[in-house]
Amino acid sequence: MARIVALDTFDVRFPTSRQLDGSDAMNPDPDYSAAYVTLRTDDPSGLAGHGLVFTIGRGNDVQTAALQALSHLVVGREVDAVVDDLGGFARSLTDDSQLRWLGPEKGVMHMAIGAVINAAWDLAARRAGKPVWRLIAEMTPEQIVGLVDFRYLTDALTPDEALALLRAAEPGRAARTAQLLEQGYPAYTTSPGWLGYPDEKLARLAREAVADGFRTIKIKVGLNVEDDVRRCRIAREAIGPDIALAVDANQRWDVGDAIAWMRRLASFDLAWIEEPTSPDDVLGHAAIRRGIAPVPVSTGEHTHNRVMFKQLLQAGAVDLIQIDAARVGGVNENLAILLLAAKFGVRVFPHAGGVGLCELVQHLAMADFIAISGRMDDRAIEYVDHLHEHFVDPVRIRDGRYLAPMSPGFSAEMHGESVREHLFPEGRVWREEREELPVSSGI
Amino acid sequence: MARIVALDTFDVRFPTSRQLDGSDAMNPDPDYSAAYVTLRTDDPSGLAGHGLVFTIGRGNDVQTAALQALSHLVVGREVDAVVDDLGGFARSLTDDSQLRWLGPEKGVMHMAIGAVINAAWDLAARRAGKPVWRLIAEMTPEQIVGLVDFRYLTDALTPDEALALLRAAEPGRAARTAQLLEQGYPAYTTSPGWLGYPDEKLARLAREAVADGFRTIKIKVGLNVEDDVRRCRIAREAIGPDIALAVDANQRWDVGDAIAWMRRLASFDLAWIEEPTSPDDVLGHAAIRRGIAPVPVSTGEHTHNRVMFKQLLQAGAVDLIQIDAARVGGVNENLAILLLAAKFGVRVFPHAGGVGLCELVQHLAMADFIAISGRMDDRAIEYVDHLHEHFVDPVRIRDGRYLAPMSPGFSAEMHGESVREHLFPEGRVWREEREELPVSSGI
Repeated sequence: MARIVALDTFDVRFPTSRQLDGSDAMNPDPDYSAAYVTLRTDDPSGLAGHGLVFTIGRGNDVQTAALQALSHLVVGREVDAVVDDLGGFARSLTDDSQLRWLGPEKGVMHMAIGAVINAAWDLAARRAGKPVWRLIAEMTPEQIVGLVDFRYLTDALTPDEALALLRAAEPGRAARTAQLLEQGYPAYTTSPGWLGYPDEKLARLAREAVADGFRTIKIKVGLNVEDDVRRCRIAREAIGPDIALAVDANQRWDVGDAIAWMRRLASFDLAWIEEPTSPDDVLGHAAIRRGIAPVPVSTGEHTHNRVMFKQLLQAGAVDLIQIDAARVGGVNENLAILLLAAKFGVRVFPHAGGVGLCELVQHLAMADFIAISGRMDDRAIEYVDHLHEHFVDPVRIRDGRYLAPMSPGFSAEMHGESVREHLFPEGRVWREEREELPVSSGI
Repeated sequence: MARIVALDTFDVRFPTSRQLDGSDAMNPDPDYSAAYVTLRTDDPSGLAGHGLVFTIGRGNDVQTAALQALSHLVVGREVDAVVDDLGGFARSLTDDSQLRWLGPEKGVMHMAIGAVINAAWDLAARRAGKPVWRLIAEMTPEQIVGLVDFRYLTDALTPDEALALLRAAEPGRAARTAQLLEQGYPAYTTSPGWLGYPDEKLARLAREAVADGFRTIKIKVGLNVEDDVRRCRIAREAIGPDIALAVDANQRWDVGDAIAWMRRLASFDLAWIEEPTSPDDVLGHAAIRRGIAPVPVSTGEHTHNRVMFKQLLQAGAVDLIQIDAARVGGVNENLAILLLAAKFGVRVFPHAGGVGLCELVQHLAMADFIAISGRMDDRAIEYVDHLHEHFVDPVRIRDGRYLAPMSPGFSAEMHGESVREHLFPEGRVWREEREELPVSSGI
């Protein structure tokens, strides 16, 4: 009878700020990082589960401390009991009455809870010998409903409604699984459009993206409206009229600013404007959507829990949503959000990039296609082409589509050497970073 | 030219779970705690600033780590530059682009930012030789507007509107200051109504509260509706028809539950129902308010920033709000919230209790009375009568009213001995706690 014997944490950081990869209007110099967690077991096979919180540098130590604070809820548990009741396991973390005060269900503590829940899913999927997407896709509707915490949702979605929705999708599961395995799932790319890139690089990368098979690209906006008009024109000319062009303001604007700014960009036939304002501002997104119709409005990568997604949908504030694998309370809360999106008929374009977010979120989108919404060709998963080499089971992209991962687990495991070399501040990469800089830099 | 030379943090916890003080429907066994922060300076007078985040036990270490993560933004700064531009100081903390990812502006990281901002206010007020309430109340309207970050607020409140509102309140400041110093500010008490208390204790404490001069008492509800009906009846009988009775569900219900439950309690002429559902659910509060009118609806102690308060007001979701001194981004963000409340004409009943929350929030309510809303007799500050003895400048209550604090600063400083004895896990109190318990308890 195997037990979880340790919750190990690692402060892993990559010095990405050197290259301006990942630069946008709110995040000028991110060092992409992961507060990485491993649930070790005493199973003789060496079974373990892996999860992570993505951050952009400073504060990754705080996030790691939050993971540690969950040890008492995890260490000592029987593996069978955890993997057989992932709904109960998730609730036992979100319901710790003292830790709950630090959220509730938001910010550092909630992201830590999400990473530990995801690590338990990795464990469960390895145990079952399946990738997470298939583990979910082969569950009964009743099992999926049992994974979801419907607290605070029942005015928008009841367990019975969720069950009906899942049952309606059941007959097509086998055909969609075959379709997924053959075709993969559509991807879109944000690699061309970081704010720190010069125009020539934007145009070249946009053309390359189309040549690589992507049907949607996204660029960052929000620092200067004249620059944005120019960059949208360059991007649109590079990709032609048949490829979708989305823009992302990363929370830069107030409501009035967003409406005025987006009217300047409306002529570029945009697929959506992402994060026009504060991720907390449900009513603000609704006002912006009314003000810039028919340009579609979107948000979600910083939407902190299912209660906020519920309201975005209830208020008609968005045309589509992003989900993020490492922001909310793990697979379980993302299933709640996918069920809500299906109920309201809103498309999902999962957020990815960062460290490991592509690896994780593909499983959720694929499970959604097979067992929940039944849709993939009107949506796509974000793709950014860096840091995948640090993962044991990295994403595979072919002709602008994510190929379904086939290894057991959640694709969250990092190479041991990658973890060791990038440990902050003691790993080799960071020791060398300090040696290259003059002492006066203060690092 | 004095500088801030250190940001010291302390994990301070009180073993309150022994007595069921503070027990409610979501928090059965809190150990009231403070992640306590001191900004030390090299000023020869020993000048320092103090702040804290209130938590209820586990996770206080995570909160302390978050305070530490702000050191690089604070240590080395000139004291004059900080106290002369508290608006700029506050923005420099909320705008750290890497730390912002951990919120943004919510949860563990935002509460830490709030505590450090409050510590800077303590420093500024000590330097000025005034209590914080008076420091604010003597600022010009322009200075107060300069303290506020209007980002994401301008669709509801512009700087010009705030300025007009503050100017309109200016002529009455002197008279209201005199009134405050003479009469104090109304308090209400939650001490009688903790869920863990037996009926007899509830009735006795409710009668004592009225005898002590309180005009409003509040009791906890939400675990069992029949118990709540009985407890409301006992409380109403104990206090008579002329004293206000409020109830607090601490986020226990979904929207439909809240409406059904509160219809059972409506006959007790309630002053408000507090936190009927998730603090994130703006639209849910609006639906509940429509469903149980005319019972007033309230929330705020867990409302994580000004953007959420803005929406509660825009949506007509609440009849009154609670503010909390240690949940949002310090004095500065609370000034934004008080200005919003004044603009929308909504009453403010500050949340207190915990550790040091009474000491802090009284300053905000008093500054609001003098310089912003101009009102105090239609509102009251929560009061709970424990743990004040650990503070150097504890609140003073007379005839159910808070007397204005007169010492320079923010009343946030704890006695050095209280901090040392309650340090977790190494302080004397916790060493003794462990010795008293059998080894098998796992603590």
